[in-house]
Amino acid sequence: MNDSTPITPAWIAVDWGTTNLRAWAMGAGGRVLAEAQSDEGMSKLSRDGFEPALLRLISPWLGAGRTPVVACGMVGSRQGWCEAPYRVVPCTPLDPAGQVLAPSTDPRIEVRIAPGLKQASPADVMRGEETQIAGALRLMPQYDGVFCLPGTHSKWVHVSAGEVVSFQTFMTGEMFALLSEASVLRHAMGGEGWDDAAFDAAVSDAISRPERIAARLFTLRAESLIAGLGTAAAKARLSGLLIGIELAAALPYWLGQRVTLIGAEKLSALYARALAAQGVTAETLPATGCTLAGLQSLTLAEVAK
Amino acid sequence: MNDSTPITPAWIAVDWGTTNLRAWAMGAGGRVLAEAQSDEGMSKLSRDGFEPALLRLISPWLGAGRTPVVACGMVGSRQGWCEAPYRVVPCTPLDPAGQVLAPSTDPRIEVRIAPGLKQASPADVMRGEETQIAGALRLMPQYDGVFCLPGTHSKWVHVSAGEVVSFQTFMTGEMFALLSEASVLRHAMGGEGWDDAAFDAAVSDAISRPERIAARLFTLRAESLIAGLGTAAAKARLSGLLIGIELAAALPYWLGQRVTLIGAEKLSALYARALAAQGVTAETLPATGCTLAGLQSLTLAEVAK
Repeated sequence: MNDSTPITPAWIAVDWGTTNLRAWAMGAGGRVLAEAQSDEGMSKLSRDGFEPALLRLISPWLGAGRTPVVACGMVGSRQGWCEAPYRVVPCTPLDPAGQVLAPSTDPRIEVRIAPGLKQASPADVMRGEETQIAGALRLMPQYDGVFCLPGTHSKWVHVSAGEVVSFQTFMTGEMFALLSEASVLRHAMGGEGWDDAAFDAAVSDAISRPERIAARLFTLRAESLIAGLGTAAAKARLSGLLIGIELAAALPYWLGQRVTLIGAEKLSALYARALAAQGVTAETLPATGCTLAGLQSLTLAEVAK
Repeated sequence: MNDSTPITPAWIAVDWGTTNLRAWAMGAGGRVLAEAQSDEGMSKLSRDGFEPALLRLISPWLGAGRTPVVACGMVGSRQGWCEAPYRVVPCTPLDPAGQVLAPSTDPRIEVRIAPGLKQASPADVMRGEETQIAGALRLMPQYDGVFCLPGTHSKWVHVSAGEVVSFQTFMTGEMFALLSEASVLRHAMGGEGWDDAAFDAAVSDAISRPERIAARLFTLRAESLIAGLGTAAAKARLSGLLIGIELAAALPYWLGQRVTLIGAEKLSALYARALAAQGVTAETLPATGCTLAGLQSLTLAEVAK
């Protein structure tokens, strides 16, 4: 950023999750002028801590007038800044009318929070992914098929005629973190290495014999103790087992479907690889691009109103 | 303990796991004179910390002479006091010749550590459970069938003609602890309540459709958020799902087999309930009784030598 030319964004995009806060100063036509992030996620903040946390990040971008801020994610949960009640599927991923105005005192900002989605049966919820899906639908109009959003809590989302029809959440990323960092398996992991063959074999094993999954985990520890299993192979195999068991349960979402991945590059590549082994060629979209396109659709609606 | 009548044990039994240290002052004929425990498990100790930790616990029981101490568990692992190399199945659960004399400086003790067992394929290991199995075989001579030892790392063990034929470890207890205390599911749990019907339904669901397990977990969180799922039902359902998926993978161990549970009372009761729903009536043995009977078999062998 060049201090001699202050940034004057048309609006500010915010992705505010459980553990992180990210903001983008947006120019005309969806151009990113600057970005910033902090670790002041929802879980670290009390209700009156949100506005100060946001201002710490974006105040360099604020001028004399009032700048619109559009946020998505856990910031809109009951434990967030201000609850943005879930909308119920089937419905469009985003609706400007569902936005909630967050209470704030600084006259330089007006903060709106996008609502998440809920599904009655099987019970499920999302906050943040609906914005990425809305963005993806702007990038791929007329898309009919399935979005897979890998992450801490991966989502599989069936979209048809511009609406979210159904979705399902998997705790795959959180399970991988817990098992590889906090369980007895941590002794078998570690390091940056990776073993594609071990990943592929584990995906195949988990999908073809999902009923064996509970028996596969401790084997990683035992093989590392008595059979020389290396840390790279152990980590890749754990990842493959967990992604494989997710694919086994998500089968109705991908079998014979058009699938598009929205997520971090490395993780999306793993899902694409696992799906390819099942005969599914997944397309991919960048997560941040989808988030920004989704949030922008809300600002455009505001302008149009 | 009455200070006016000092305890003079014939030997001292020690169960030294990853997180806890338990010791029993043993009299003639396997009678328990006193017991003590601390949280100085293997994971908290460096190699030269074991003898002081043991003495802190048992010194009130030591007299002028040398008292034999027999220990089992992770104390015999590579990261323990002294490695007692694994014995390879199929073999008897314990062999006095496999014991290792731990290096110690206090003339009042002589510490022997029982070795664990390992299985080449599928790779698996145990340390501590072999002693419980040896004890169980003293309590139930001629037993032919399967032992299930529920716990942090549950073991299923096929025993025939006095030998351990094969075994399999499941991380069920550790998974339950991680998911209920450290994952997003912790928000749905908590409290002392329990719901038998929720447990039963989850066991049945996991056994009959194990390929759906990855889809079942986040549903607990979502139902607690939007469908009023109570903490007691959520906790019981998580327990049922994890025990159910363990039973699904352990099926060759219990289907049509004689099964005996060795473990903590409450947890064994859950496994017995889950097995009963599959038509298996499990017998039960007390874990501590088995540990002491197993360790005693080593002292008897010493005496006989």
